[in-house]
Amino acid sequence: MASLITMDDLSNEDILAILDDAEILLPVARGQAYLPLLQGKLLGNLFFEPSTRTRMSFETAMKRLGGDVINLGDVSSSSVVKGETLYDTIRMVDGYVDIIAMRHPRQGAAQYASDSAEVPILNGGDGAGHHPTQTLLDLFTIRQAHGTIEGLNVALVGDLRFGRTVHSLSHALVRFGCSLTLVSPDSLRMPSEIIDDLQVLGATITQTEDLAAAIPSADVIYMTRIQKERFPDEDEYQRVAGVFKLAAADLAPAKGSMIVMHPLPRVDEIAPDVDATVHARYFEQAFNGVVTRMALICRLLGITVPQTIDTGNGGES
Amino acid sequence: MASLITMDDLSNEDILAILDDAEILLPVARGQAYLPLLQGKLLGNLFFEPSTRTRMSFETAMKRLGGDVINLGDVSSSSVVKGETLYDTIRMVDGYVDIIAMRHPRQGAAQYASDSAEVPILNGGDGAGHHPTQTLLDLFTIRQAHGTIEGLNVALVGDLRFGRTVHSLSHALVRFGCSLTLVSPDSLRMPSEIIDDLQVLGATITQTEDLAAAIPSADVIYMTRIQKERFPDEDEYQRVAGVFKLAAADLAPAKGSMIVMHPLPRVDEIAPDVDATVHARYFEQAFNGVVTRMALICRLLGITVPQTIDTGNGGES
Amino acid sequence: MASLITMDDLSNEDILAILDDAEILLPVARGQAYLPLLQGKLLGNLFFEPSTRTRMSFETAMKRLGGDVINLGDVSSSSVVKGETLYDTIRMVDGYVDIIAMRHPRQGAAQYASDSAEVPILNGGDGAGHHPTQTLLDLFTIRQAHGTIEGLNVALVGDLRFGRTVHSLSHALVRFGCSLTLVSPDSLRMPSEIIDDLQVLGATITQTEDLAAAIPSADVIYMTRIQKERFPDEDEYQRVAGVFKLAAADLAPAKGSMIVMHPLPRVDEIAPDVDATVHARYFEQAFNGVVTRMALICRLLGITVPQTIDTGNGGES
Repeated sequence: MASLITMDDLSNEDILAILDDAEILLPVARGQAYLPLLQGKLLGNLFFEPSTRTRMSFETAMKRLGGDVINLGDVSSSSVVKGETLYDTIRMVDGYVDIIAMRHPRQGAAQYASDSAEVPILNGGDGAGHHPTQTLLDLFTIRQAHGTIEGLNVALVGDLRFGRTVHSLSHALVRFGCSLTLVSPDSLRMPSEIIDDLQVLGATITQTEDLAAAIPSADVIYMTRIQKERFPDEDEYQRVAGVFKLAAADLAPAKGSMIVMHPLPRVDEIAPDVDATVHARYFEQAFNGVVTRMALICRLLGITVPQTIDTGNGGES
Repeated sequence: MASLITMDDLSNEDILAILDDAEILLPVARGQAYLPLLQGKLLGNLFFEPSTRTRMSFETAMKRLGGDVINLGDVSSSSVVKGETLYDTIRMVDGYVDIIAMRHPRQGAAQYASDSAEVPILNGGDGAGHHPTQTLLDLFTIRQAHGTIEGLNVALVGDLRFGRTVHSLSHALVRFGCSLTLVSPDSLRMPSEIIDDLQVLGATITQTEDLAAAIPSADVIYMTRIQKERFPDEDEYQRVAGVFKLAAADLAPAKGSMIVMHPLPRVDEIAPDVDATVHARYFEQAFNGVVTRMALICRLLGITVPQTIDTGNGGES
Repeated sequence: MASLITMDDLSNEDILAILDDAEILLPVARGQAYLPLLQGKLLGNLFFEPSTRTRMSFETAMKRLGGDVINLGDVSSSSVVKGETLYDTIRMVDGYVDIIAMRHPRQGAAQYASDSAEVPILNGGDGAGHHPTQTLLDLFTIRQAHGTIEGLNVALVGDLRFGRTVHSLSHALVRFGCSLTLVSPDSLRMPSEIIDDLQVLGATITQTEDLAAAIPSADVIYMTRIQKERFPDEDEYQRVAGVFKLAAADLAPAKGSMIVMHPLPRVDEIAPDVDATVHARYFEQAFNGVVTRMALICRLLGITVPQTIDTGNGGES
């Protein structure tokens, strides 16, 4: 059984097949149908770096399908503190579970874990590296809104330098022929080596600091958080962060079908008045993390998702 | 589906119906019968303030009925620290689960969550506000001992000023026609606005600092913990806390049917020698939290509790 | 139902029966067969002292058999901090679950808990006292490799003074007629009262500081971690710890059937190059913790393990 470490582990056909399965599983993720495909299966949640949302999303995915989860728990009180190597921790948990979801502060840790383990590893983020399950849920959300992920205009906004989320996503979007508008302060531009990679794939890329100008033609505006820690100076942070924000009024020139996304948590990049617009999709996006992870786990465990699901005894929630 | 934020969300008939269901579910809570009424259902445990007992009780209630739980986990390492608003956290978890149990340090937080969420919210305590699931288990324990909750003499003892437990409970007891004896140091008296409210409902209330005098006529003595943090001065704390304590010898003048309750954890308000008396009910009371929460969750999720339960394959534990 | 506090709670016949059941359950522990023997059952995990491996192992054992777990969670944010006694915590959890696994820093705590509770207590380590479930998994691992646990030569290496693991294990090995070679620095020798006890049982014991000399005749080399905190002085620690280490080259004179064990986590007592030798068994040993705990929990809950298991729908992981 294979692991998912970067989006390169999946072909475009693989991605679409996972999104198709995810769509079928929607009623199960919503609690409208009970389908214990993962009964008796265990996922090990190894979060060497805390992540409420990603951890809970993996956990929900397993439990909605009748599986269960073993959490490593707080790293500061775990055997890691006693000096255990990542190799030993992985070998231990490898014996306990059927599949491992992990986040680690060190780039390359997920690949290293996959080389050490017999069960599949799901990379839930490794340093500034990859975050492929986030990319799958982003693609699902885009396809859900637009019916396709091909040939769209996607604006990626905010911290494009340190954000692994936008690195993984931009790569996948280009594979599906999307045009990218990269909107960031000069100090947080997408690294040039990533842009070079994207251009080798034939990407159409526009770089700008002008968020307002990017709105009218966008099919997707993907906002990200600008972290205060990135700036040596509070004033500089305030100046920069103040510009890369959206409020409902800013969206007047947008297409009706344009969607606003955000990997969450947001701080103040998106004003609360956007929530009530037709464009807001970030909460659906978070929910979609459950359904795409359900589909992905089934695939890696070799479990076939049925093509229709009976929602006879449910449907209300 | 409605939430449970305060006891005012339930009529007296609702309360009695929940207690009836809870009684039926006793063998399931004891592990003597397996009844997976909540199979496929998920509860989100959002404890923004730690509470071992309440969190474990909700978790046990779900799992005894075949459901499962997603824990937000330690708030200090969650997305809350990254500056996420309560609104956003609730909207995220709302997409993952079928029902949310929450505790929050801020009064009104549970109502706010309920306004934000689509799934029902169970208020597990919000600041100095309400704690209705504690009140339900208290009422269950009283009815279990006395066969009724109507017309009893209940002495509430200790910190009546800051304790949300006694605020919620006193209100409910008055709705069932109980007489209240409020026994506290002068500095920890029940707030006058709560007493006014109770009197509008027709309550018979006696206020006193004399615990011994309240014992002979009481049907229930409800002890609470006096927290050292409430006092500016260790001496004052010692003087006050020393008085509002029960030992077995103090109970000699009590009625045989009188029960001693405590929301736990206790520190030294109740001496260990009380545990062996016929009056002690605090451990049963803690256990009753499981069975009343089972009944309540079923009610809020629209799941009917059967009127008889087969305990053929169990019964011993 | 009885508790398991020390290995003295089990006769040799009991031990062998548990190991037999554990062997049958191997495919279930590996996720190759689904056997929900513990459906509807709850284990309470009360770790007053953190232990990633032992906690996860109990949790995996329950969940692989269809049961579930309630975790006390981080003691620093639990009701224990509010001043609750161990007695009260145990009485509370006793009402919630069918069986309790606990670890506590105080020797004797598990016996005290067992005296307080109605459900069985599984001692997961109490101070410098006992750790019987570790001993069961060690015995299982030895029998798996050698086909028997009788009459073997076992070398126990490292910290024999403070390690409860080697205290419990040495006692059990002597009951099965094993010869012991105790290899440790002088300051970390097995306490003389334990050696006296073992000799009363008829043990053949050799004490030495020479690890190399113990290798050729050993059937089992059981390594343990020497903790820096045991030494007043970093130099002394480095001098001592440097000697009680194994590398692959050291194993040249060993018997082909000799196995190297370690309760994990290791720091650097066993070099990574040992992992690839035929002798290394520490990761299997960790996995065996799941299967022996499964068998043990079934036994204490009075649930019969079937003598054959259908692995028709699994087998690949």
